Amino acid sequence: MSQTSPVRTAGFLVFPNVTQLDMTGPQEVLTRMPGWRAELVAASRALVRSDSGLVIQPDVTFAEAAHYDLLVVPGGPGVDVAMLDRETVEFVRDKAQRADYVFGICTGSLLLGAAGVLRGRRAGTHWQSREQLAKFGATVSTERLTVDGNLFTSGGVTAGIDMALRVVAELAGDDVAQQIQLQIEYDPAPPFNAGSPDVAPPEVVERLLAASAQRRATRSAAVDQAVAQLAAFDR
Amino acid sequence: MSQTSPVRTAGFLVFPNVTQLDMTGPQEVLTRMPGWRAELVAASRALVRSDSGLVIQPDVTFAEAAHYDLLVVPGGPGVDVAMLDRETVEFVRDKAQRADYVFGICTGSLLLGAAGVLRGRRAGTHWQSREQLAKFGATVSTERLTVDGNLFTSGGVTAGIDMALRVVAELAGDDVAQQIQLQIEYDPAPPFNAGSPDVAPPEVVERLLAASAQRRATRSAAVDQAVAQLAAFDR
Repeated sequence: MSQTSPVRTAGFLVFPNVTQLDMTGPQEVLTRMPGWRAELVAASRALVRSDSGLVIQPDVTFAEAAHYDLLVVPGGPGVDVAMLDRETVEFVRDKAQRADYVFGICTGSLLLGAAGVLRGRRAGTHWQSREQLAKFGATVSTERLTVDGNLFTSGGVTAGIDMALRVVAELAGDDVAQQIQLQIEYDPAPPFNAGSPDVAPPEVVERLLAASAQRRATRSAAVDQAVAQLAAFDR
Repeated sequence: MSQTSPVRTAGFLVFPNVTQLDMTGPQEVLTRMPGWRAELVAASRALVRSDSGLVIQPDVTFAEAAHYDLLVVPGGPGVDVAMLDRETVEFVRDKAQRADYVFGICTGSLLLGAAGVLRGRRAGTHWQSREQLAKFGATVSTERLTVDGNLFTSGGVTAGIDMALRVVAELAGDDVAQQIQLQIEYDPAPPFNAGSPDVAPPEVVERLLAASAQRRATRSAAVDQAVAQLAAFDR
């Protein structure tokens, strides 16, 4: 990386009940890119608790946020609230419009959808939320990694790590991406083959779907409300 | 999970310049285990900054820590300082002795070594630190996942996610582990095949080794000092 290159900024949105690995996986990868800095941005500087109980300190508020060359939007159960929060949605819309690149991870794609960013775009999300994505006018991808122009979206949680390497390749070259992959020893060897509904044992898929039925219903209702808000927003 | 099962606790150590993904990957996986709670423990309640700039709030101090059924020790550049900090080393030694299970990720294994936990045990670490591990009396494993009795150790950074699923399988059963794998959509598809020195392009390995030569020298000196401290500790 040339010493004279200007520093570029990646902004990582966080909100209560974010799924921390949606954000922390890409943060670990993207912060290793030479010439880039990262900041965590939230509605306020108050500590943010992930759905797994990890407590994180945002670096800046929406009002203090820098220009983002890359906007990163993670997901999690908190998306149901965040996509109905006008301030959050307007922030995402504004930053996404100005950013060179936008990167949605897992159900972070729903938040991008609520901000109107996905209309007519091809995008993916967590496998359990795919049917929701179409409501925002997106062309739904069932792939783990989806690239549509300057829009990168990934499947659930850990797919963000794969996609972050892809983003690095795009922004800094294959060689840098491979070097980061080697630094984080990302030569995955999961002990089971159960990471997508296509390969997991059917009884595992069924049990998970049964356990999450209420949660999916809540999400569907929240998405319907976000779609209505987006329509009102546009008038 | 039966309602009457007592809750068990996983303690995640954090320290300045921890590599956050060493910890956040396993935290995301292990906190999804029914019947378990997690806490982040540090020398004080002061905010902890990872080497990538993520700022995390510990839940408890060493003095406030609960009994840990599972002790989780991540790595990172901060290990060089942590393994020479008497209070941290004694905390790790004490908790590891009392825990049912111990889980070291990446160079967290060096911290376990500095606490005397690895003598005569088989253990792995980040590929760039393997030669250091033997100094603590460990039998060095070059595998991504190493299990020796109640001791789980993994290779670098992302290997912690694979190992966390293995730990869940051991502690809660294969079915629970598979369900968590499906929740986090862990069906990895890295865009490159560069995640270990055995498979990465040789020029990528060489460039990384050249760039990290100083860092490895610093680490080697710190490990030598930790070995000397451990010998003094035992007398």
